[in-house]
Amino acid sequence: MQIPQPYLLFLGDVTDPLSVKTARGILQWRPEICVGQLRLTPDTVSLDLADLPLEDAYAKGARTLVLGTANSGGYIPQSWLATLERALDIGFNLASGMHQRLGDNPTLAQKARTNNCKLFDVRHFDGDLDVGNGKPREGKRLLTVGTDCSVGKMYTSLALEKEMNHQGLNTQFCATGQTGIFIAGKGIAVDAVVADFISGATEAISPSFEEHDWDVIEGQGSLLNPSFAGVSLGLLHGAQPDAMVLCHEVGRQHIRHLPHMPMPDLASVMEANLAAARLTNPDAQFVGICLNTSALDIEDARAYCEQLASQFPLPVTDPVRFGVSTIAEQLHQF
Amino acid sequence: MQIPQPYLLFLGDVTDPLSVKTARGILQWRPEICVGQLRLTPDTVSLDLADLPLEDAYAKGARTLVLGTANSGGYIPQSWLATLERALDIGFNLASGMHQRLGDNPTLAQKARTNNCKLFDVRHFDGDLDVGNGKPREGKRLLTVGTDCSVGKMYTSLALEKEMNHQGLNTQFCATGQTGIFIAGKGIAVDAVVADFISGATEAISPSFEEHDWDVIEGQGSLLNPSFAGVSLGLLHGAQPDAMVLCHEVGRQHIRHLPHMPMPDLASVMEANLAAARLTNPDAQFVGICLNTSALDIEDARAYCEQLASQFPLPVTDPVRFGVSTIAEQLHQF
Repeated sequence: MQIPQPYLLFLGDVTDPLSVKTARGILQWRPEICVGQLRLTPDTVSLDLADLPLEDAYAKGARTLVLGTANSGGYIPQSWLATLERALDIGFNLASGMHQRLGDNPTLAQKARTNNCKLFDVRHFDGDLDVGNGKPREGKRLLTVGTDCSVGKMYTSLALEKEMNHQGLNTQFCATGQTGIFIAGKGIAVDAVVADFISGATEAISPSFEEHDWDVIEGQGSLLNPSFAGVSLGLLHGAQPDAMVLCHEVGRQHIRHLPHMPMPDLASVMEANLAAARLTNPDAQFVGICLNTSALDIEDARAYCEQLASQFPLPVTDPVRFGVSTIAEQLHQF
Repeated sequence: MQIPQPYLLFLGDVTDPLSVKTARGILQWRPEICVGQLRLTPDTVSLDLADLPLEDAYAKGARTLVLGTANSGGYIPQSWLATLERALDIGFNLASGMHQRLGDNPTLAQKARTNNCKLFDVRHFDGDLDVGNGKPREGKRLLTVGTDCSVGKMYTSLALEKEMNHQGLNTQFCATGQTGIFIAGKGIAVDAVVADFISGATEAISPSFEEHDWDVIEGQGSLLNPSFAGVSLGLLHGAQPDAMVLCHEVGRQHIRHLPHMPMPDLASVMEANLAAARLTNPDAQFVGICLNTSALDIEDARAYCEQLASQFPLPVTDPVRFGVSTIAEQLHQF
């Protein structure tokens, strides 16, 4: 699966800034693939991109209309359909992160066939996969792991990709979640594959390679999150990481959505990941810790990073506030 | 999902005894729900059940025709279709463990609708699930875990169900794989659910209960099998076992299908399972070890069980040769 780029970002009639997180992520990490935005109403959230009608965006090179918003039900609103149909008539591909599949709408499916356009439902995976085999493969791999969901694994992965390339390590980001897939233009949502194929999907996302230096694989969930740990373990085994970076949100009181599950301490999470990682890569090791310190003021954040750095000892940073150069520097020695 | 019982076991035209493992398992553990067998040719493997035409079996009460065979492609052979169609016309439901879905055959789908019969594809799961939450629930649970796939987890689970009921512990078997689902008439193939829902599926299979003593949950795969460990971990978290039984095949040299992956030792497997289990049940413990000792003569098998029993120390048995009473006896104290 390769989503044709560049994109026109479709924001529909969404007025809640949090609901355009996906579109904002694409723009933040890949501004060069975002030709413009398409909003249906004046009240729709804006990303401060050029507002472009479909025809103008297509003329400027956009090839996929990306539904970069989330709504609670995951369904495509009726009020969007006329625009999506017109996009297909113009020649756009459509890419969506909604639960409802684009292809389940008969009109969209028909128009895609007629116009020879593709419909990408990145939250689903319909392709064929092999089960994982754990065989060592060529290339060096870094995996971001977390104390929980939504602690900055994608952000950290993309920040590392950028910084490692900046430091002369030829690095590719490997996407395992929907926003990451829009950003990379490819990948597999590993939490959406049939359970038997979690590690196999990860092996497929980052196959044997020799022509660059590192793959940075986006982690998902946490080994100590009882909702999603199976995904995290299959991903870890499939990734066979040489290097891992632990991601954590400072101040989070309990596992997300589960008030009865206290947050594990960082050492336990690292121990669990190291033990499991060694099954497919005996040399797996941690090379750094990335914190979301937004709950702290910047001086306290810096002090806390320093404290943890001496405790573990590893480079510890907040990638948003302080960057990830200290971690990337660890990766030249592999 | 509840598959109407009793069954007529459909053996098609299968001549390889290994390919009727599923049908044989149903007959072994639930002879009372097997009205007879249906074979298409004189050469077809026989389970020494009455050969019954569809009409006779229906008259004797059979309500589901079970496709209890495996073939390499997982596809329903053309030569079976006339019989399957006729079964639907008579009023049978169909249940299949093949990869190809019964409902993907338009004629079968149409006849099922017309005759108000159900098509059960136990290798697939299409229902709605919640993600797991890890909340403690009422009831005591035993989970079988393994050093690998195909080391006797289903056999051990069913042997324990039988023996525990025999010892006065009111026990129910909870199926997580296709043969187990045919046997129980219900269950979810956890390796076939979308990865995000592994632990949630397991929580749904064994919900809170007070009206009996134990659920025995069939395990899948192994935490140390790099192909399927994600399934095993989600299943473990979802099962929240109070008691675990380790299953192992004596003499196996490497992880099944993966010659490069040496078999882990029993202590490592137990340690990995205990560490992971404690996330959702801090009191999880092992209560026994079940070995497939078919590689040893019976005296060596007995001696090996005794040796391990003093090493761990736990009851150690071969459930086929020596039964599981010593393990069931451990379960009265919970």
